[in-house]
Amino acid sequence: MLSVDPHMDYDEPLFFQVMKYAARADRDVVDMVSGNPDWEPPEALRRGLREYADADADQFQYPASEGLRALREEIAARRNVDVSQVVVTNGAGEANYLAMARALERDAGSEVLLTDPVYPYYPGKAKMLGGDATFVAVDRDGSPDVAAMREAASEETACIVANTPNNPTGAVYSRETMAALVEIAEEHDALLVADEVYDHFDFSGRFESALTIDSEHRVVTTAFSKSMAITGFRVGYAVFPESLVDAAKTRHMLVNVAGSRPAQVAVLEALRETDPAYYEATRELLTDRIDAFTDALDAAGAEYERPDGAFYVMARFEGFPGTLDNVERLIDEAGVAGMPGDAFGERYDDWLRFALVTPRATEAADRLADYFG
Amino acid sequence: MLSVDPHMDYDEPLFFQVMKYAARADRDVVDMVSGNPDWEPPEALRRGLREYADADADQFQYPASEGLRALREEIAARRNVDVSQVVVTNGAGEANYLAMARALERDAGSEVLLTDPVYPYYPGKAKMLGGDATFVAVDRDGSPDVAAMREAASEETACIVANTPNNPTGAVYSRETMAALVEIAEEHDALLVADEVYDHFDFSGRFESALTIDSEHRVVTTAFSKSMAITGFRVGYAVFPESLVDAAKTRHMLVNVAGSRPAQVAVLEALRETDPAYYEATRELLTDRIDAFTDALDAAGAEYERPDGAFYVMARFEGFPGTLDNVERLIDEAGVAGMPGDAFGERYDDWLRFALVTPRATEAADRLADYFG
Repeated sequence: MLSVDPHMDYDEPLFFQVMKYAARADRDVVDMVSGNPDWEPPEALRRGLREYADADADQFQYPASEGLRALREEIAARRNVDVSQVVVTNGAGEANYLAMARALERDAGSEVLLTDPVYPYYPGKAKMLGGDATFVAVDRDGSPDVAAMREAASEETACIVANTPNNPTGAVYSRETMAALVEIAEEHDALLVADEVYDHFDFSGRFESALTIDSEHRVVTTAFSKSMAITGFRVGYAVFPESLVDAAKTRHMLVNVAGSRPAQVAVLEALRETDPAYYEATRELLTDRIDAFTDALDAAGAEYERPDGAFYVMARFEGFPGTLDNVERLIDEAGVAGMPGDAFGERYDDWLRFALVTPRATEAADRLADYFG
Repeated sequence: MLSVDPHMDYDEPLFFQVMKYAARADRDVVDMVSGNPDWEPPEALRRGLREYADADADQFQYPASEGLRALREEIAARRNVDVSQVVVTNGAGEANYLAMARALERDAGSEVLLTDPVYPYYPGKAKMLGGDATFVAVDRDGSPDVAAMREAASEETACIVANTPNNPTGAVYSRETMAALVEIAEEHDALLVADEVYDHFDFSGRFESALTIDSEHRVVTTAFSKSMAITGFRVGYAVFPESLVDAAKTRHMLVNVAGSRPAQVAVLEALRETDPAYYEATRELLTDRIDAFTDALDAAGAEYERPDGAFYVMARFEGFPGTLDNVERLIDEAGVAGMPGDAFGERYDDWLRFALVTPRATEAADRLADYFG
């Protein structure tokens, strides 16, 4: 169990620094830094936005604070939850903020239990909310080490955050793991926050939403940002237990009043009218990229775990630890920009993270194979 | 000086209750409850949205966290501030939240000094952020009582919030008042938050932005919600002093990641391409409504102050105090729905607030004149 603070400078997050360095480089560089999908959003989303542009002026006024009723009903029906439990948020970012705030506001401790490696926003939010982050190293496959999490949890634990499919490890947590984490949360009067923003990117066929685990100590957060390739629209949601949802809605109202209505309208249209084939096609696209990329990693003699979900690959190259210096060297000498592993904690500080959301993923793979091979 | 908590049930704000009652009424009712503009947004806004619907997919991804650069530059140029000081937010709601959070996070006290009457979100935000609200009754004309504010301020004061043009009083604070409030903030190491969301609705010709008062203790917040008739788009901004802006950007990033991009793009187009005549026309529309409404108040023998700004009128009818009961009676017996004054504090708990953002304002005025006259 670690108790460290990963590299996180929010005024200029590390990934901005890396992208700036890549932009200034004296050569062509493939950007594998950021997590922005590079494919087309659903056509229905564009249509929804186009139609909305000509809507009556009263459609341009405040939506309900908790989200457009029709959108919440569509979500509730698809997720098999009561509509009252659904809060539409400004992306998964706000959903996680609301869930973590709720966890820390119950006078049930101030500790936030996180994995190492971790998506850096979680410890940032924990700190802002007055919580103390504790990091527990993941298993070799990138899944939580349940025994170590259980060991680390105590009466001080207010919140456990689990991101599955996982950024950065690519692990898809098993149902047993998630059930165990919910159980740990229940034992210590904590909340398990399941961030499932990559839920549409499961290549293992094993992903199961934590919504299937019934508990007053479980909050599920997600967004349409990745699944519809619209990270800039900021439409996500949280599903809270009935006992917690009112307080979460109050905070949402006091912070944001409501989410942006044009984006909600467009997402609703896309949710209703997009064929499952759209999501299937992006999964196939990513599977092909994973194949090509991991073939190249094999050729380069790298250590890696083939991702079961999300769209990142962690890789370790012999004698080439994942420092910022080495990330910059790889930009200059191989023309590939990744993220230093220590941006996510200590567990993978020898590693590099590559995001596969670029049409040039195969080209980058060839460059890495040439450089390290 | 009062130290009370105005009626504020955020799970179902009072105005929802009143609107529901009005909707259930057994007769036609003019809604003068909510603050949603009833006129057309700028045509350029619709065009901006229409064009964006067909933009390249990369335009659908994360904007910069602090807002689209072009939008921030347009704002900075118009407001004569450095672009680095501008944070684009999810409406004025988030701008006020960020400003008040900054004020309360400096270890400079926990008191938030507010006027009575007050826009109910301010004490709600103060409480959520761990602050203690103190209410100071306004002058007869609805402006802050500067002497009483000075008297109330102490080393415990972290924040003073001033909304001008004011909701609900309609007062436009004088430059001297604003300068005095900034001075009080400086004396006690507090922040003066000037919420200027009604800045385009000044009928007095005397409104001057607090941006003209140079101070490290002054934050200006506003939004395009009212001026462009797009309360549902959620695009606003805060202008922070250089010394405070980085911390505010960090909180914005940790809460929301970024604001919604379609809305920002549409607002940018509207900001660039909308003729001043658009704003002038809405002011004329509102001036006509104020004329008709105050004529009717005269006929009804009501006490009121003609609003210098914003779009609300506070009125007191002899023997008819502004309780929720009387609001409901007015709905049933006169067919006009207003807000009870005690929703805003104690100073005007005998009064009713009427929002003039309905094409039926004149009809409502006639009904009131008939009922009370």
